[in-house]
Amino acid sequence: FASRSAMVRILIKGGKVVNDDCTQEADVYIENGIIQQVGKELMIPGGAKVIDASGKLVLPGGIDTSVHLEESFMNAITADDYYSGTKAALAGGTTMVIGHVLPDRNESLLEAYEKCRSSADSKSCCDYALHVGVTWWGPKVRAEMEKLVREKGVNSFQMFMAYKDMFMLRDSELFQALQHCKDIGAIARVHAENGELVAEGAKETLDLGISGPEGIEISRPEEMEAEATHRAITIANRAHCPIYLVNVSSMSAGDELATAKMQGKVVHGETTIAHAVLNGMQYYHQDWAYAAAHVTVPPLRLDPSTPNFLMSLLGNDTLNVLTSDHRPFTIKQRAMGKDDFTKIPHGLPGIQDRMSVIWEKGVIGGKMDENRFVAVTSSNAAKIYNLYPRKGRIIPGADADIVVWDPEGSKTISVENQVQGGDINLYEGLRCHGVPLVTISRGRLVYENGIFTCAEGSGKFCPLRTFPDYLYKKMVQREKVSDRKCRC
Amino acid sequence: FASRSAMVRILIKGGKVVNDDCTQEADVYIENGIIQQVGKELMIPGGAKVIDASGKLVLPGGIDTSVHLEESFMNAITADDYYSGTKAALAGGTTMVIGHVLPDRNESLLEAYEKCRSSADSKSCCDYALHVGVTWWGPKVRAEMEKLVREKGVNSFQMFMAYKDMFMLRDSELFQALQHCKDIGAIARVHAENGELVAEGAKETLDLGISGPEGIEISRPEEMEAEATHRAITIANRAHCPIYLVNVSSMSAGDELATAKMQGKVVHGETTIAHAVLNGMQYYHQDWAYAAAHVTVPPLRLDPSTPNFLMSLLGNDTLNVLTSDHRPFTIKQRAMGKDDFTKIPHGLPGIQDRMSVIWEKGVIGGKMDENRFVAVTSSNAAKIYNLYPRKGRIIPGADADIVVWDPEGSKTISVENQVQGGDINLYEGLRCHGVPLVTISRGRLVYENGIFTCAEGSGKFCPLRTFPDYLYKKMVQREKVSDRKCRC
Amino acid sequence: FASRSAMVRILIKGGKVVNDDCTQEADVYIENGIIQQVGKELMIPGGAKVIDASGKLVLPGGIDTSVHLEESFMNAITADDYYSGTKAALAGGTTMVIGHVLPDRNESLLEAYEKCRSSADSKSCCDYALHVGVTWWGPKVRAEMEKLVREKGVNSFQMFMAYKDMFMLRDSELFQALQHCKDIGAIARVHAENGELVAEGAKETLDLGISGPEGIEISRPEEMEAEATHRAITIANRAHCPIYLVNVSSMSAGDELATAKMQGKVVHGETTIAHAVLNGMQYYHQDWAYAAAHVTVPPLRLDPSTPNFLMSLLGNDTLNVLTSDHRPFTIKQRAMGKDDFTKIPHGLPGIQDRMSVIWEKGVIGGKMDENRFVAVTSSNAAKIYNLYPRKGRIIPGADADIVVWDPEGSKTISVENQVQGGDINLYEGLRCHGVPLVTISRGRLVYENGIFTCAEGSGKFCPLRTFPDYLYKKMVQREKVSDRKCRC
Amino acid sequence: FASRSAMVRILIKGGKVVNDDCTQEADVYIENGIIQQVGKELMIPGGAKVIDASGKLVLPGGIDTSVHLEESFMNAITADDYYSGTKAALAGGTTMVIGHVLPDRNESLLEAYEKCRSSADSKSCCDYALHVGVTWWGPKVRAEMEKLVREKGVNSFQMFMAYKDMFMLRDSELFQALQHCKDIGAIARVHAENGELVAEGAKETLDLGISGPEGIEISRPEEMEAEATHRAITIANRAHCPIYLVNVSSMSAGDELATAKMQGKVVHGETTIAHAVLNGMQYYHQDWAYAAAHVTVPPLRLDPSTPNFLMSLLGNDTLNVLTSDHRPFTIKQRAMGKDDFTKIPHGLPGIQDRMSVIWEKGVIGGKMDENRFVAVTSSNAAKIYNLYPRKGRIIPGADADIVVWDPEGSKTISVENQVQGGDINLYEGLRCHGVPLVTISRGRLVYENGIFTCAEGSGKFCPLRTFPDYLYKKMVQREKVSDRKCRC
Repeated sequence: FASRSAMVRILIKGGKVVNDDCTQEADVYIENGIIQQVGKELMIPGGAKVIDASGKLVLPGGIDTSVHLEESFMNAITADDYYSGTKAALAGGTTMVIGHVLPDRNESLLEAYEKCRSSADSKSCCDYALHVGVTWWGPKVRAEMEKLVREKGVNSFQMFMAYKDMFMLRDSELFQALQHCKDIGAIARVHAENGELVAEGAKETLDLGISGPEGIEISRPEEMEAEATHRAITIANRAHCPIYLVNVSSMSAGDELATAKMQGKVVHGETTIAHAVLNGMQYYHQDWAYAAAHVTVPPLRLDPSTPNFLMSLLGNDTLNVLTSDHRPFTIKQRAMGKDDFTKIPHGLPGIQDRMSVIWEKGVIGGKMDENRFVAVTSSNAAKIYNLYPRKGRIIPGADADIVVWDPEGSKTISVENQVQGGDINLYEGLRCHGVPLVTISRGRLVYENGIFTCAEGSGKFCPLRTFPDYLYKKMVQREKVSDRKCRC
Repeated sequence: FASRSAMVRILIKGGKVVNDDCTQEADVYIENGIIQQVGKELMIPGGAKVIDASGKLVLPGGIDTSVHLEESFMNAITADDYYSGTKAALAGGTTMVIGHVLPDRNESLLEAYEKCRSSADSKSCCDYALHVGVTWWGPKVRAEMEKLVREKGVNSFQMFMAYKDMFMLRDSELFQALQHCKDIGAIARVHAENGELVAEGAKETLDLGISGPEGIEISRPEEMEAEATHRAITIANRAHCPIYLVNVSSMSAGDELATAKMQGKVVHGETTIAHAVLNGMQYYHQDWAYAAAHVTVPPLRLDPSTPNFLMSLLGNDTLNVLTSDHRPFTIKQRAMGKDDFTKIPHGLPGIQDRMSVIWEKGVIGGKMDENRFVAVTSSNAAKIYNLYPRKGRIIPGADADIVVWDPEGSKTISVENQVQGGDINLYEGLRCHGVPLVTISRGRLVYENGIFTCAEGSGKFCPLRTFPDYLYKKMVQREKVSDRKCRC
Repeated sequence: FASRSAMVRILIKGGKVVNDDCTQEADVYIENGIIQQVGKELMIPGGAKVIDASGKLVLPGGIDTSVHLEESFMNAITADDYYSGTKAALAGGTTMVIGHVLPDRNESLLEAYEKCRSSADSKSCCDYALHVGVTWWGPKVRAEMEKLVREKGVNSFQMFMAYKDMFMLRDSELFQALQHCKDIGAIARVHAENGELVAEGAKETLDLGISGPEGIEISRPEEMEAEATHRAITIANRAHCPIYLVNVSSMSAGDELATAKMQGKVVHGETTIAHAVLNGMQYYHQDWAYAAAHVTVPPLRLDPSTPNFLMSLLGNDTLNVLTSDHRPFTIKQRAMGKDDFTKIPHGLPGIQDRMSVIWEKGVIGGKMDENRFVAVTSSNAAKIYNLYPRKGRIIPGADADIVVWDPEGSKTISVENQVQGGDINLYEGLRCHGVPLVTISRGRLVYENGIFTCAEGSGKFCPLRTFPDYLYKKMVQREKVSDRKCRC
Repeated sequence: FASRSAMVRILIKGGKVVNDDCTQEADVYIENGIIQQVGKELMIPGGAKVIDASGKLVLPGGIDTSVHLEESFMNAITADDYYSGTKAALAGGTTMVIGHVLPDRNESLLEAYEKCRSSADSKSCCDYALHVGVTWWGPKVRAEMEKLVREKGVNSFQMFMAYKDMFMLRDSELFQALQHCKDIGAIARVHAENGELVAEGAKETLDLGISGPEGIEISRPEEMEAEATHRAITIANRAHCPIYLVNVSSMSAGDELATAKMQGKVVHGETTIAHAVLNGMQYYHQDWAYAAAHVTVPPLRLDPSTPNFLMSLLGNDTLNVLTSDHRPFTIKQRAMGKDDFTKIPHGLPGIQDRMSVIWEKGVIGGKMDENRFVAVTSSNAAKIYNLYPRKGRIIPGADADIVVWDPEGSKTISVENQVQGGDINLYEGLRCHGVPLVTISRGRLVYENGIFTCAEGSGKFCPLRTFPDYLYKKMVQREKVSDRKCRC
């Protein structure tokens, strides 16, 4: 089986290896799914497939920290499952995804997790892991969180301050959930919007007769996000828990993060490719389907300076991670909200184009260099989710998740030739100067020049360990210091 | 009845009249409770009592915008009723107070109001008005607010974000209450602390074995106030309602106000004399009774720069009003919390010494000039509560509420010779260079050199009108502008 | 001489008197140039001219704190002298102007002052005063400043951080000038742009081949102003001198002022009508003459949010005064810079339309109410320049400088019917809802419905006293406090 | 020669290798001055000296980016030359230093450089490089900067905004110097204090009769640093030059850096161990010699929160590098300023204790974890000065500059047993929990348990290359983008 054996040994020759701290000319030799050597004039066994990377960059494969695949949400099922979704990821240079398990209110977290695993295990084409949503609160949730962490390879939970009467936790519940995260060493992901004001805003907006997609921004403007971000950081600080804010979408929320960091708080943030590139004027497009296709929460922001600002925050490490938050719905699915924007399912596609789009807007745009590109698309995620340096870095001993990137190549994005699901691409027509040529997942060449050679279900669930140093080492030391003070 | 007739006509001669915009040498002639003339070489009828004010300042009487008299709170009744409390006010140079009506959960606002009125009317020695607490929420409250505003002379309501399971409103309730305030033109007073975190903090602090008065600051640190302040301002902005934050106690909360003002929001703030002068180190005093005597909420702050900063905010109009928030309890009453700081009734005395203390720390301290002193102790309150320029200014036609102030005099504060109730004075031993000599209330000389000549019940309830220009004129215009835009 | 005697006694009847603190229905009676009575049902002598002000507002006449009349600057002479300029002022509702004396390097300040006086005295139609520029530094300047203050009725000096090799003072010179201002109780006006960077920027911009009017903003972007503003405030703080920043033109400079105020510093600011209304896109207009007509320094700013922000700062008292900074040049004069933007004389017209334009954009726009309008166009200037309450307020005893304002009237601005000089109006075509009907200067009715009845030279020089309380009272007290500390 | 050959091959066994991104258990094998292998169960040749690092950390040797050795400054010569200074460095875990060449006004930069080289080459015990001061400005300086960069291995220049009439550049000179740095790809180090205000402040302070060491802080308070920091960043931004601020010493200056980073500017900062640990109360010590021993510029700050804040900035990457700025003077030398603080030579010792002190205060104090410790003491310096990853990282191929660190060990700092020169140690009596056990420089074991085995002059000058990616990659890309825009 030729193509199979070709994957066993691979030599990437003549490229520049880009890690998050520096770039170096080096060859990379891969065997048994592991990077064995990185350097020049390597001594390697014969028979390796040689990839010529002259003039190309060799990057750690992307890690997409928030994807929604085969998810049922707001009466719709996402247009990608773990098969099509991970294929699209690989085509775009992403070699690992972290999916979401979002239990219903009162549903067992464990059962929801198992359900998701059983489907994903058989379909995923790349490594994956799972976040579990703490979508309600009680002793059972607390116990199941512990079990998920100890036995199931989960190290992150997502809490919602929005989605009133659905996922929303009250402040005291959020406080307790964060305390629990800290006790078990989990990563606390928080979606920050004021759910009560969102609900009031939606009612008021509909009452004013505004029912179109523009209602999403009118009803939940950025001050609701900034408020909740401030609150979330306060609650986390009281709980002595590192906090990780998701879908940071506005300048004012970004300012809250920056302020917290200046105060020495342990705060991290993730934004999405859509928020970092697009703005809320899209909601005023005359074509309902086009406008509706941009509905997500928090919404894209009206202030046109927003994407530039978020990109700067990615550049200066106020924001740490760029995700797709891929959650594709079709126009037909969105049409459920034809007469009421609150019924348009929230979510945007992006799993495939994330890396090329951020390269174009961030690197070519002078907002970040190639090393920072690697940081926000891969290494930081590996550090935060405790996979580093097994993932997120090209060094001997690491998983061979690698992309050969052509900084001179270009392609134009179009829904016509996309691998991901859905019937619209938000970056339609964008010419990207920087494209993935070859994707290698765990040492297997899975994508090359548009051809997939990956098998459904060949990806593996990747259990994640608790207490990542990147978030917790300083925090744990602080507790020691303050305990010592208390004892005196 | 000599002393009575002496009050009918008064000439204050030779002083400097201090209003909030300037100071001028002028005589003031009073008749029938009204300031008739202000100027030099006045033509006045004979027989007037002449007060020699050479070398003295003639100030608008103080307006103390938040006092708790004859109030039952946390299982204790305040050590002053409307008689003793208003006497103390007059002795300190304050000629009007605004008291609180705090209905229990589900209690009728109207009934609580009437109960308070009937007692206060018969006791008060100076003009007074009333705030009513919106301590719960529902259609009945909404209706009663309207009735209070239309028929009862109430134009301000106080909402609490703290006091969980007691007075606390949830965000959606607060939003609706503020919307309603805006619709009826009322002043929305908000106490901003995160009630859920306060409750969690109290539990945690007690669990750590901390039960003394220091627990009050440990369990509700300033970040809980800053958070709630940010949230309150956000909610008010969504409701298009001017907001008035009470008991602003920390630098971070002050920063929130300043930021909001820079964004053009209509935000006002009130701090108390205790917060503007004292800090939270008091809670660590070895004498339990002394420490407990400082328990209030929000608590005095540990950062020793706080009082100076709050004073600066009073000086630069980020904070507008300085109140006493007088709510005196005895040591014995506080002793209910001997083993549990959460049971110490919240509240501090201050009605009598407010003006002298702020003069000493603010004016003598170089933080504000005498005109700004008048602004924060009197004129701004009159403007906000829609009494201006009938009160808060010395001009012909205004109520003759006047203090003759000796900027060269001095006195040492002591519980020994105080008029107000309670068995402790927080400013014990403070030497104040600036003291009230004569107080005139509605044209009656009621206090002079330590002698009272006021009769119980001689003060009048002062009904307050809605839609004060000072808060609402700009706001109303904005609504017009935005309506016009919507119509286009 | 009928019209003359008609001016002696005037009764303004039925209007609403608007001061900076409140609005009241009242009649105003004027005699001998002084406001004699304000109130209802006044007892007045017969024979007064009655002005029906029903439905109208009665405002303190505007004070325009920075005008350049009959000034030779950058090889051009302004298109207005004290006659035409003050006529235009009166037509717009302004009853006092403060002009500039800008000595050349090494020129005697006194001589420059006298030259200006002799011309202005014979021409001015309204009260006026003079700022003197400290355009160079040395013992002679120091001595002349003192003499101007003691003998000549000057209480304000203007220092420049820009205009390198022309007016610019170095930091140490500015420091000494501010120290001297403090010692003699003068108001220190500072133009804050980094003159060295401006010079470098101009060279660089011309070198890039950019010679058109857009070069003004490209070569001196707002960071140069923010930098110098920060520096000026620092220098003033070291010199213990109140500082007054002129022509504040950008958001970042405004932020510097706000930050300084939060730190308790004594900082005031003035912006111009052009900066508060227009933005820098004007410089890119295809018509050179139109673009060039907007050249001023600091330039109008490119960020389109700037005018709104400056207006908010006027609304919240971060900025205190709105001036015209009237300095009109003709298209022909500007054409000197046809091939080199640095040769276009700096300055914009605005003396006539200042009040109507700010009413339209500020009051109608919901940024400030009518009282705040009075504050920024008149009262604050009177307070700062130590004229208050003789000017800037409608009360008995004040100068009868009054405008009757029609808030329901409207007019469209056009160069066609303007009184002021120059051949362009920056607000051409703007419809203003709020217009001056009648202007009264020192009790003389000088303008009514388009008709002037003022005589050339009838305006008076208005000597200004030092140590205005508004700037100095707090500052002086602080020095006392710190002296006392030092002595301990 | 046994000890010599022992150095040729070294195996560090059983330790934890700490890089700036993560910590891993690994052995390190060294040969020929280079790290050959890092990992477990290494295959190595026999005869290597084995260092048992069980329970120990293996760190990249420290890089001290600012040391003054054998420098004549303010009429004194530093108490260390390149021999004693670098020995002390090695004893403390530092394996590379960057010294200063500070030409006199009008002195040739090249000649000053050569003079320094000739002495340092023969004395240094560890690798070193040199900054050259741009202490005056002119075409000759410009030309020599280029030559130093092209031929002499210099890639950094230091400019001063303080030291008026000595090193200070005016704004236009600084602008040109920074433009030139950008053109030649050099690192622009800027000392930011307002030199003109410093001079005025010194005069004023002496005039007030304050001549003791406390005068240093009184005469140059932090606002002078914040001002100059803001100005420097503005000038750099205009020059499109990355800026590196040295000796950042105050909270307000730190805020300026943070603000600039939020705006996307390329700004880096260095603070010193003294500023990050000590505060300005030292200047008020009653012992003149003790107080004078703390005189440096910018001075240590009075606000006691400063060190904690600076440490937080090191923790969150607002500040990037911690240096010693070692410049030791004896008490006798300082006594030149016995009667005039301006004559006390500026400078503090610290080369030996930098790493242990920051470990104690930063890592043990919970402000940074061990990886961030490596970043601020070594890796970031390597990145900025373009040595990375040859230095600053433990990986195969890198220079074998390594410290074995005992996180369980402790020692008490004392002048009694210090290697560095001078007769005072600022950290006298501080117990540090974290000490260097073994120092390896370029593969030679040079220090072990208090014993030196290094030879004078064995250290090498380390030429530095221009255009470090860490500073310039993003900047260069931005220029491309903006050029492209201009061409359109």
